[in-house]
Amino acid sequence: MKSCWLSFPPLFCLHQIKSTKHTLPKKQRKRVRQRKSYNSKQHLTLHSHQNNTHTTMASTSSLTLTQALLARAISYSSSSDTTTPRAIHLPALPSFSGLKSAPRASSSSSRRRLPARATRRVRAQAVTLDATAETALVEKSVNTIRFLAIDAVEKANSGHPGLPMGCAPMGHILYDEVMRYNPKNPYWFNRDRFVLSAGHGCMLQYALLHLAGYDSVKEEDLAQFRQWESRTPGHPENFETPGVEVTTGPLGQGIANAVGLALAEKNLAARYNKPDSEIVDHYTYVILGDGCQMEGISNEACSLAGHWGLGKLIAFYDDNHISIDGDTEIAFTENVDKRFEALGWHVIWVKEGNTGYDEIRAAIKEAKAVTDKPTLIKVTTTIGFGSPNKANSYSVHGSALGAKEVDATRQNLGWPHPPLHVPEEVKAHWSRHVPEGAALEAEWNAKFAEYEKKYPAEAAELKSIITGELPAGWEKALPTYTPESPAEATRNLSQTNLNALAQVLPGLLGGSADLASSNMTLLKMFGDFQKDTPEERNVRFGVREHGMGAICNGIALHSPGLIPYCATFFVFTDYMRAAIRISALSEAGVIYVMTHDSIGLGEDGPTHQPIEHLASFRAMPNVLMLRPADGNETAGSYKVAVLNRKRPSILALSRQKLPQLPGTSIEGVEKGGYIISDNSSGNKPDVILIGTGSELEIAAKAAEELRKEGKAVRVVSLVSWELFDEQSDSYKESVFPAAVSARVSIEAGSTFGWGKIVGDKGKSIGIDRFGASAPAGKIYKEFGLTVEAVVAAAKQVS
Amino acid sequence: MKSCWLSFPPLFCLHQIKSTKHTLPKKQRKRVRQRKSYNSKQHLTLHSHQNNTHTTMASTSSLTLTQALLARAISYSSSSDTTTPRAIHLPALPSFSGLKSAPRASSSSSRRRLPARATRRVRAQAVTLDATAETALVEKSVNTIRFLAIDAVEKANSGHPGLPMGCAPMGHILYDEVMRYNPKNPYWFNRDRFVLSAGHGCMLQYALLHLAGYDSVKEEDLAQFRQWESRTPGHPENFETPGVEVTTGPLGQGIANAVGLALAEKNLAARYNKPDSEIVDHYTYVILGDGCQMEGISNEACSLAGHWGLGKLIAFYDDNHISIDGDTEIAFTENVDKRFEALGWHVIWVKEGNTGYDEIRAAIKEAKAVTDKPTLIKVTTTIGFGSPNKANSYSVHGSALGAKEVDATRQNLGWPHPPLHVPEEVKAHWSRHVPEGAALEAEWNAKFAEYEKKYPAEAAELKSIITGELPAGWEKALPTYTPESPAEATRNLSQTNLNALAQVLPGLLGGSADLASSNMTLLKMFGDFQKDTPEERNVRFGVREHGMGAICNGIALHSPGLIPYCATFFVFTDYMRAAIRISALSEAGVIYVMTHDSIGLGEDGPTHQPIEHLASFRAMPNVLMLRPADGNETAGSYKVAVLNRKRPSILALSRQKLPQLPGTSIEGVEKGGYIISDNSSGNKPDVILIGTGSELEIAAKAAEELRKEGKAVRVVSLVSWELFDEQSDSYKESVFPAAVSARVSIEAGSTFGWGKIVGDKGKSIGIDRFGASAPAGKIYKEFGLTVEAVVAAAKQVS
Repeated sequence: MKSCWLSFPPLFCLHQIKSTKHTLPKKQRKRVRQRKSYNSKQHLTLHSHQNNTHTTMASTSSLTLTQALLARAISYSSSSDTTTPRAIHLPALPSFSGLKSAPRASSSSSRRRLPARATRRVRAQAVTLDATAETALVEKSVNTIRFLAIDAVEKANSGHPGLPMGCAPMGHILYDEVMRYNPKNPYWFNRDRFVLSAGHGCMLQYALLHLAGYDSVKEEDLAQFRQWESRTPGHPENFETPGVEVTTGPLGQGIANAVGLALAEKNLAARYNKPDSEIVDHYTYVILGDGCQMEGISNEACSLAGHWGLGKLIAFYDDNHISIDGDTEIAFTENVDKRFEALGWHVIWVKEGNTGYDEIRAAIKEAKAVTDKPTLIKVTTTIGFGSPNKANSYSVHGSALGAKEVDATRQNLGWPHPPLHVPEEVKAHWSRHVPEGAALEAEWNAKFAEYEKKYPAEAAELKSIITGELPAGWEKALPTYTPESPAEATRNLSQTNLNALAQVLPGLLGGSADLASSNMTLLKMFGDFQKDTPEERNVRFGVREHGMGAICNGIALHSPGLIPYCATFFVFTDYMRAAIRISALSEAGVIYVMTHDSIGLGEDGPTHQPIEHLASFRAMPNVLMLRPADGNETAGSYKVAVLNRKRPSILALSRQKLPQLPGTSIEGVEKGGYIISDNSSGNKPDVILIGTGSELEIAAKAAEELRKEGKAVRVVSLVSWELFDEQSDSYKESVFPAAVSARVSIEAGSTFGWGKIVGDKGKSIGIDRFGASAPAGKIYKEFGLTVEAVVAAAKQVS
Repeated sequence: MKSCWLSFPPLFCLHQIKSTKHTLPKKQRKRVRQRKSYNSKQHLTLHSHQNNTHTTMASTSSLTLTQALLARAISYSSSSDTTTPRAIHLPALPSFSGLKSAPRASSSSSRRRLPARATRRVRAQAVTLDATAETALVEKSVNTIRFLAIDAVEKANSGHPGLPMGCAPMGHILYDEVMRYNPKNPYWFNRDRFVLSAGHGCMLQYALLHLAGYDSVKEEDLAQFRQWESRTPGHPENFETPGVEVTTGPLGQGIANAVGLALAEKNLAARYNKPDSEIVDHYTYVILGDGCQMEGISNEACSLAGHWGLGKLIAFYDDNHISIDGDTEIAFTENVDKRFEALGWHVIWVKEGNTGYDEIRAAIKEAKAVTDKPTLIKVTTTIGFGSPNKANSYSVHGSALGAKEVDATRQNLGWPHPPLHVPEEVKAHWSRHVPEGAALEAEWNAKFAEYEKKYPAEAAELKSIITGELPAGWEKALPTYTPESPAEATRNLSQTNLNALAQVLPGLLGGSADLASSNMTLLKMFGDFQKDTPEERNVRFGVREHGMGAICNGIALHSPGLIPYCATFFVFTDYMRAAIRISALSEAGVIYVMTHDSIGLGEDGPTHQPIEHLASFRAMPNVLMLRPADGNETAGSYKVAVLNRKRPSILALSRQKLPQLPGTSIEGVEKGGYIISDNSSGNKPDVILIGTGSELEIAAKAAEELRKEGKAVRVVSLVSWELFDEQSDSYKESVFPAAVSARVSIEAGSTFGWGKIVGDKGKSIGIDRFGASAPAGKIYKEFGLTVEAVVAAAKQVS
């Protein structure tokens, strides 16, 4: 059942309905008829989203069908809305409207364009008109979606038509009947989120965005599917296509992102909603397929979703029994329903998803009624529905149908239209979403303005979360250290930073994969985010690194001011690498707090000791790999991490205590590499010693030894290679003069990649084998990571 | 119920029992009494392992208790076995005995030492002696295990005492009562496998190996727990400690390894067992904890185990409600039992795992009776059982108890002994496992000798799987190519190799994570390994990359001659990186067939295009990263991969067609880097162009252009950096003369790491950003991976 679009009490809706006097254009009549098939037994019902109370209009007012139809009409014709009742006079819009920082080439003017008078609507459901015509229109819309996918894939001769053909009905119902969004501002804060976890079926989403009126997917964009620089790439990419929330394709990521989006909503709603204003209130919808279901990450994330009771997460499982290798019988015979029940989900099965519109609608209604559990709607569909020769086979999964089969499908589904055509009545039918969406946003903006008046402090916080604007002076919270400050493990220094920042950054929240007391990630002033305490900011992920990373991606992409952090041992980034890569690609500024960053963790041995991990992330695009050496560098790393909202930061932190080194600084970290000490002159030291993290101390000590012997020695901290790369040539030359080829690096990790830093004549001291189980000091010594080794190497090269 | 140790028909056992005349020493009487508590209602029963048929002795013979006891006695005293019946005369041992290639510092002499006359035993279960003393001995043994763990962790002041204290009862029952193994030959082929998936509890396994008589864990090894170069590292490592099957610690890996071990058993049993000889016949046991359960990889692997119906996989879930962050309630409230039922497992709950010996025994019996499903035995235990102040808390999970609490625990459990002490009666009790194990192996060897006589072809194949000795001349199966051979994608060439090799390598088996038709991994002469066709060699992993990798580790470590391969898109190595790292660390020679290895895959876009992956694996120790350019190089890569049984190989293969290049060769690949063409003389080209994989063609074409302009150009294929690194300095100089600094590399991946190859004056053409969605040719051009770019760079540097 549809909710009242308004969060105002039902009477407000009634009032509005009664005071409208428009006649209903033909296309809206059709729309109203469609409602009938949705739930013909229901009277016109207003449904308050959050508290699940119902007010049946037929029983509380003398509302007529005509009146109900009139009410709907408002939303289609704002300019003709001349008899606006008092309640419709909107307050001035707040100066922001839930905008995310502008995407590439997005049109901010169009996003901000709102109708002169925002309009309202309410959906009529008790109409008794003939359903045939309505269903015919729905089917035409559904077939439009199917053929947009078929034709775009055919044109590109590349792509995945099967899923869109099977999922078009649920896609239609979601975008046309259920979801609340504003096509002209894809970043409106309170929109419902949709995630296509089965990202290969992206033509489904592009078709829906196109029909809904998003500027990001115009007809020419559909025609450019999978082409260079198009807005319609081969898998959904949030950074390319406004309206796409997250980047999917790698299976299982999307459902986990959706858990993050739903977590963010639940947390923000708990923190900012007031009894008289549900300012945060949206659903998160997902479509996932068999592939997503098989991936371990989805089980991790869904186990957490069940644990957290994310009632506003509604996932559609496209149960089509086909994956790339053929029938799922060959590798996937588990009972998915039962597994999800075991994970604490509400499960509904729609047995005929190709045509069962009413069943899909009823399932969504049921899902919304279950507020303490996420819902899995298993929708049994036919992959490639409509293709007479390829439906229900793997051949329709990931290839164009081919001209002959496209024709046969057109024949079969009665589709006489040319490629990429949207019939006029379908266009007309969908056209209301632009004014409706604008009205929704205007409505919410008005609500926010009232909220702001009553709750200025909360509003200011929420605004900073919505806009991503960091509170002025936040960086003053960062701790600083002197060489006299006590030695401390950088993991502990990290906790000091996190706790300092949590007090000034309302968007900071996160936790660890069951290693909070080792990663030192607890925010001491907050409790645990749990089902019954969703306002808290310590997230307990359990031993689920991969799900954790992807959930954090969802949190980060929910709102620009949400700054999720997550933690495990550095070596276990291997478990979550696919999620970290998506952070980097999708510009999600997650902070990865990765402790136990070397053999320095000691006895746990080689399974727990990272070796190649620094190198492996330095090679990954758009990641900031930071390895601070002490207190100031840890603070600097957090400064950089917080400021970089469009790229993830990975902080590699020590288990073992490290001294506060003279010469380190926050500013130094911001440059990525800098001189911490130097007794040379004229930018011409005899030798440059380079270290990172825990080995910077060794470099510094070796320098002291060498200086005692009269050498001019520079010590450089190369805390972040990426940041250093971005510095000017002159700055780089000031740190690593081309003329000085005597360079020695030391780092407790692979030497891979250091060749470029130390040059042909330099030397790299590192570890190019697996670690060992023993006390840390012993391993350092046996592995030759010592002051003596650096001194010897320095003498060799200089 | 206990199985008959013998695989001979029951009558053989009876014969043997009747003809023995030994009296029973005191310690064996105790052992017999212990049986009573196991199943006091049973008569002495012989249980044929494989077909689950039972022959109750009491009903088929006049066997007396005394006779039964006598039967047991045989196994303890082989030297006094003077009245050997005919059936006990063993054939000469075959020249091999299921040996795996020798581990570091293992004593092959002790492993091969067998008693002069192998002995037999059968277990008596119908005795009616008093159980009290027996239970007391079991408890003493269990407490021995607990205190070995407590004391070793205390001595190291590092480690995880909690799990061993809670799991000691199930550990005792497994190693003392259930499992079939030979302590003096940890590599005996037909042993039961045990995996401690919760690897942090490794002191449990070390204590059990110690009690069972493995030479790898002597008292001095226990005292060296977690110390430099000890046999008892911080997590179980198969390459350090014979008796440890796989390397665990990273959670969830072990249970997935166990699925691989059980798959291997099921496959080999189906292929080699005969109606008259079950030559392959063992169980795989696992202990996993809450952490393993939360990891997605375990759900992936267990879903497959259920799908495959791995009835001889029995997993104990240590359900102790505590993980590092505290009570599992904070992050893990799913219904694990129900989830496993949904995955197709048989589930049993032992509610009192701390003391419920009989319940554990009964559960194992039940599990064995269910032959078409794997079994999860959920054993509810108390972490740190026995510690009066720390039991049932996270504080006992991963830290030494501390002297005071160790004392209190000694007091509480009535343990007066000094640290690391094994009471004499416990020693005596366990001492039979050495002769028993030797007998088991001798028995099996005899059986194999008979099998070999009857089925020489099968025996030869199985032998090569058991020993890892590759069939002579296998490499002749590798295809070769000339420049005239048609252009082909290396993924297709890979399939040609796989199909050629499968015919000569009986141990080759594997498959893809639902991308068989993209990865080109199907073995055309075989069907699918499935529940009802376990003899086949195409494995369908579903979309479960992480589980796939770990399952392949299990297969590889089952038998030296098993050569598992697995496949997905190269970019999705991110999903399975933790498993690949374990391949490398644990010396599992898995072949990773990774196709779609660059932007050359085209339209699928950046989520599917690897960039940093080559670099990230080049940095990982003990991995062979191979990127062949054409047919000969693909064959060469397979040759290297097959030969390297102790390190995994990753083959990066193209989606797109590539020409057969002049100058490539199998021999070249074996050197890692080699010259494919050169028009210089005196080892002094003007410029060296270096390429890998699909870009070698570009380098070759650029060389042609440059040569036309009169340049002396060398083209080097650097197909495997690791192999090249292992060549002699003189060979390296012959390829990359130090005097030639004009070097240009081209590779469709990150330039990270190339600095060392091209040197300070060289240039690297690569991709240091994410990919894009477009036809492949377009992306190559836009990204500057062109002949023109190489020519220009060559002119710049030379």
